[in-house]
Amino acid sequence: MDILDVIKNRTSYRGRYKDMPVPKDDLIKILEAGVSAPSGCNKQTTSFIAVDDVKLLNEIKSLITPPVAETAPAFILVLTQKIYAYRDKCFNVQDYSAAIENMLLAVKALGYESCWYEGHITDDDDIAGKIAEHMGIPDEYKIVCILPVGKPAEDIKTAAKKPFNSRVWFNGFGTVSN
Amino acid sequence: MDILDVIKNRTSYRGRYKDMPVPKDDLIKILEAGVSAPSGCNKQTTSFIAVDDVKLLNEIKSLITPPVAETAPAFILVLTQKIYAYRDKCFNVQDYSAAIENMLLAVKALGYESCWYEGHITDDDDIAGKIAEHMGIPDEYKIVCILPVGKPAEDIKTAAKKPFNSRVWFNGFGTVSN
Repeated sequence: MDILDVIKNRTSYRGRYKDMPVPKDDLIKILEAGVSAPSGCNKQTTSFIAVDDVKLLNEIKSLITPPVAETAPAFILVLTQKIYAYRDKCFNVQDYSAAIENMLLAVKALGYESCWYEGHITDDDDIAGKIAEHMGIPDEYKIVCILPVGKPAEDIKTAAKKPFNSRVWFNGFGTVSN
Repeated sequence: MDILDVIKNRTSYRGRYKDMPVPKDDLIKILEAGVSAPSGCNKQTTSFIAVDDVKLLNEIKSLITPPVAETAPAFILVLTQKIYAYRDKCFNVQDYSAAIENMLLAVKALGYESCWYEGHITDDDDIAGKIAEHMGIPDEYKIVCILPVGKPAEDIKTAAKKPFNSRVWFNGFGTVSN
């Protein structure tokens, strides 16, 4: 699929997944997309843990309340480190967001679906912290996002977007292209 | 080009650009990639101003000290709004970062080069604020990034990356894939 079509067709999938494992080669391709993202001053603050071991996957899922992506055959956990680019500047949010977007596009290109679960696990009930504790992840790494990966078992619904001209302008604020 | 190859081959280009305008159709394709990015709770906090008018482009360039991308025939200014997704949660940094990555990939796929200039313009000397003031951009929008767009006039240099296995693990922290 053309990259611009993949970008346009990617959407947040919250439906059920088919009961089919994701081949390790495909997970690696998705993770390669993640590490290929740019990072502020090339600090590469983002790390990744792919989880397809059924026992561990179920343990992680049991910590997610209310549950999401219960039927996904694999998760990618996105981890960030607060590494400063210079002085008090840290671009780790930008870094992991670019990595996540790369992985979402790779997921789509390979025929899978996913969804960027961040707020749900980083809220005050700290689901991410519980997962990190369960897995023995060192304190200097913080889980910020879960990406499920799997073949969709339901229809794909696209999100409604604001009109193009309300967000994109040419040569001036609010100036619509002619 | 295959999307995974585009993702792997994208790099931050800081060289000179050829003196060739970017067709409006290509700028629109790049901007469509930007608006197609996901956003937290679909708040679509990111907006974009493409600048290819020579006079305005030069005025903006004159505000960037020390200069970057002086020879680029077009800029895309990335704007963000602090729109809350829920309670005190705002994902605008994630939103614009995903949009920037989408645009960097579209830039590469269409045969152009770019670089994510954020720290340089959002530092204490507030170059972004000076550009916003010059252009009359309302206070509720903040310029956070400039993406130059153009054909490269110099060789492309790729950034060195940490080893894959130092950032990517399987089914446990630090567990290398076999």
